[in-house]
Amino acid sequence: MARRGRKAHLEDSSPKRRVNYRQLKNPFPPMDVFSSDEIASMHDAALRALEELGMRVLLPEARKIFIAGGARADGDMIYIGREMVEAALASAPKSILARAGARDRDVLLELGSLVFQPGAGAPHATDLTRGRRPGTARDFKELVQLTHHYDVLQMMPPLIEPQDVPTHLRHYFTMRAQLELSDKLPFVFSRGTPQVRESFEMLRDFRGLSDADFHAAPHCYTIINTNSPRTLDIPMAHGVIDFARAGQVSIITPFTLMGAMAPITVAGAVTLSHAEALAAITLGQLARPGAPICYGTFTSNVDMRSGAPAFGTPTHFQASLAAGQLARMIGLPWRSAAGSAANINDVQAANENQFGLWGCLMAGAAVVIHSAGWLEGGLTVSYEKLICDVEILNMVAELCAGAQAGAAEIGFDALQEVQPQGHFFAAAQTMARYNTEFYEPVVHDYANFGTWTERGAEDASARATRVWQDILAADQRPRVDGTRLEALKDYIARRTDAGGAAPES
Amino acid sequence: MARRGRKAHLEDSSPKRRVNYRQLKNPFPPMDVFSSDEIASMHDAALRALEELGMRVLLPEARKIFIAGGARADGDMIYIGREMVEAALASAPKSILARAGARDRDVLLELGSLVFQPGAGAPHATDLTRGRRPGTARDFKELVQLTHHYDVLQMMPPLIEPQDVPTHLRHYFTMRAQLELSDKLPFVFSRGTPQVRESFEMLRDFRGLSDADFHAAPHCYTIINTNSPRTLDIPMAHGVIDFARAGQVSIITPFTLMGAMAPITVAGAVTLSHAEALAAITLGQLARPGAPICYGTFTSNVDMRSGAPAFGTPTHFQASLAAGQLARMIGLPWRSAAGSAANINDVQAANENQFGLWGCLMAGAAVVIHSAGWLEGGLTVSYEKLICDVEILNMVAELCAGAQAGAAEIGFDALQEVQPQGHFFAAAQTMARYNTEFYEPVVHDYANFGTWTERGAEDASARATRVWQDILAADQRPRVDGTRLEALKDYIARRTDAGGAAPES
Repeated sequence: MARRGRKAHLEDSSPKRRVNYRQLKNPFPPMDVFSSDEIASMHDAALRALEELGMRVLLPEARKIFIAGGARADGDMIYIGREMVEAALASAPKSILARAGARDRDVLLELGSLVFQPGAGAPHATDLTRGRRPGTARDFKELVQLTHHYDVLQMMPPLIEPQDVPTHLRHYFTMRAQLELSDKLPFVFSRGTPQVRESFEMLRDFRGLSDADFHAAPHCYTIINTNSPRTLDIPMAHGVIDFARAGQVSIITPFTLMGAMAPITVAGAVTLSHAEALAAITLGQLARPGAPICYGTFTSNVDMRSGAPAFGTPTHFQASLAAGQLARMIGLPWRSAAGSAANINDVQAANENQFGLWGCLMAGAAVVIHSAGWLEGGLTVSYEKLICDVEILNMVAELCAGAQAGAAEIGFDALQEVQPQGHFFAAAQTMARYNTEFYEPVVHDYANFGTWTERGAEDASARATRVWQDILAADQRPRVDGTRLEALKDYIARRTDAGGAAPES
Repeated sequence: MARRGRKAHLEDSSPKRRVNYRQLKNPFPPMDVFSSDEIASMHDAALRALEELGMRVLLPEARKIFIAGGARADGDMIYIGREMVEAALASAPKSILARAGARDRDVLLELGSLVFQPGAGAPHATDLTRGRRPGTARDFKELVQLTHHYDVLQMMPPLIEPQDVPTHLRHYFTMRAQLELSDKLPFVFSRGTPQVRESFEMLRDFRGLSDADFHAAPHCYTIINTNSPRTLDIPMAHGVIDFARAGQVSIITPFTLMGAMAPITVAGAVTLSHAEALAAITLGQLARPGAPICYGTFTSNVDMRSGAPAFGTPTHFQASLAAGQLARMIGLPWRSAAGSAANINDVQAANENQFGLWGCLMAGAAVVIHSAGWLEGGLTVSYEKLICDVEILNMVAELCAGAQAGAAEIGFDALQEVQPQGHFFAAAQTMARYNTEFYEPVVHDYANFGTWTERGAEDASARATRVWQDILAADQRPRVDGTRLEALKDYIARRTDAGGAAPES
């Protein structure tokens, strides 16, 4: 290690604020948008839709599981009785402890938890130095490193599609990048049983687990999107079944846009989403009772003039609240989502994402996906937006930590010490706390206009560029077992030689 | 009026979404940051500070009122017994109906109300076409017009200082601009009795009221800032007394920055702020029991490295929550504040303002000041930021309106009508509602990346420039009684000839 000068030494030795951003509890009082009677009516309408209107289920194996569980079938339409749904809700666990690469990275999924993820699944990446482009392997790895850097992003999502990696090899690449560059809970895409099985194998061996140990606790998660309205396609149905049987986490999330693939009303769209989520949860519980499954919703509206999706709107907020009420009724951990429709990291992007985020927070969501970096309604992840949004997530994490108001904090002595029109800069209470009392921002700048102008008049986006560049330059990685990493590389080389595994559709 | 074509006619005849943004009730569940015991301890510490440490009161008349009310004096230090504070809290009204220029602009101030104001009191104005400059008469009038345009900004604040108007004539100019360009509740600066008395006269006559009618209900308001710590200066003390005696609204707002003119802790800073507010409320109630006075807080932190003020921080949020708990304990209507320390209308500016706003909303603030347009910690009001922040306030107003989940909204028929993987664009429920179901944004743009790029790739700030330019070009004004306007002009001409009225200091 290089010797460091006196200044660096002094800076290092001053006390720093230390707040645990890794395990958060939601401190915000839940807000209702509908009465409990209205919520009961929505739940009842969802059950009635499953019984009378049915779900289209494209995977024969899934239809067989539903039928064996008591469902009625007509072609690929499956009609699910409410007693089946009730049995599934009774067997689904209310609390899930997902194991990451280190114990202090484990993620507890239950009502009251609060877990953030950056934007996921975007075809494009963008930053101010390289512009907007189709996502690449390099972008994927860089965004994994940025996600790894911030404790407040507790789960690793599939940030962007590395489009320069062939689809039959992509799961090797994304699993290796997640395991080598982070010890956070990894994501596995449900793109068919072969890719999922291989992903489980890579993860099991890298974590040094037996097959039985791997199955005994969740070590990864997937997102299951229904095809609204009322369709469960082949890879998604396989995902529900495969993850349930392996004891890994499925987060069931119908993505419903009011006025497009869902009714135009909040109540109607959330009822449809609820029905579809209940159908997939039922499938998972039939495949393996007690399988770890999260309830999820992502419902916003379209702009009725253009048909374009909108996020961070009042109806998006209300849909989160309604879903939160349904989640509390059924008692399952649930995920919601923030996000933005803006095309660049501007004021619209900031305001939409934060507005949607508060909807999730006040709805009691345990997991908030797309809460950093998500632009264009999910078509792009922005490096600068990821940094700027982390600022807000960090500040929310600070609110989770609360504040004290004991005698030392009220500090009558400090009030007594400072004369009228004096200042508290040198008060004993201030001196004891000035290094640790306040949150230190990532990218927000408190310099006055003159100083800020002298320093180049950079806006928050421009400053965010330097922040992510510094993180990538530091290249901090989790400790990795060299033998297991070599074994992973060997596994990938062998499977690649054997032809990889094509995604299912 | 010019004849309009068929297209304009069709556009005008289609139903529009109509939501009342003028009278809002706060729908957000209040959040606590401290236990009720801790809040009681803070209240007790504030009472003890007033009794034992005292307030420095610079105005002899105010000291006389305090002493006549039972306070102990030592030079300009006034020691206020808790029984005096309790009597003041008992006589202060819990609900205040302030009369604007039109009945549907009246403002109800009580716990549970929700009233927004744009940024106030800034020395500078800025916009993207003319840059940052010392505030002028033109800026003041333009910002009054922008504030008047948006229903969600229910009170008129002193947006910027028109520095090209001499200080001894400025109250004439600002009163005339507020009355001629808006019928919202006007603001009067407490810059000494002569200016306040003349402002009351102008307003009384313009509203066509007798002196008795004017005194019988509030028709304007002022903001009272203490000089923290523990000082009430001469113009502010005069303001409290003059407004109380005239039955006009004082909003008492200590502006305390943790670590600078207030203790470094949230609990300490809010305790100091609470003590100072109680002192000024007590003065007002002694001057006229039952006088309409709002409780207020504006507490944030400084950056301990530079001493610069910060806004929209976790401690700002927590201070709002604590003040809300104290306000609910004493039962008075109360104001809080959002705002930003950013130097331009960028992502930081958006995120800070919205973060602070949610603190106010979850703290149950009845009035949220500086909630649109406020940059540089209050040194500048930005035209573009005002427009961008109004978007958020409008969306909050939409949340106040709530949502329905009756049979028509749940819409089982719509679920039945649309087949699996179909769409709801043409569903009967959609057709009946597509014009009115969703909030229409002011400046947010949902165009996809290609379309947005073709249209010039403007960010939200650039689009906001066009929005405010269009509003000013339309020059919409409230109906004004020509005779009263002439009388106002005459009054101002006469008083100007007589030498105006210098501010007090």
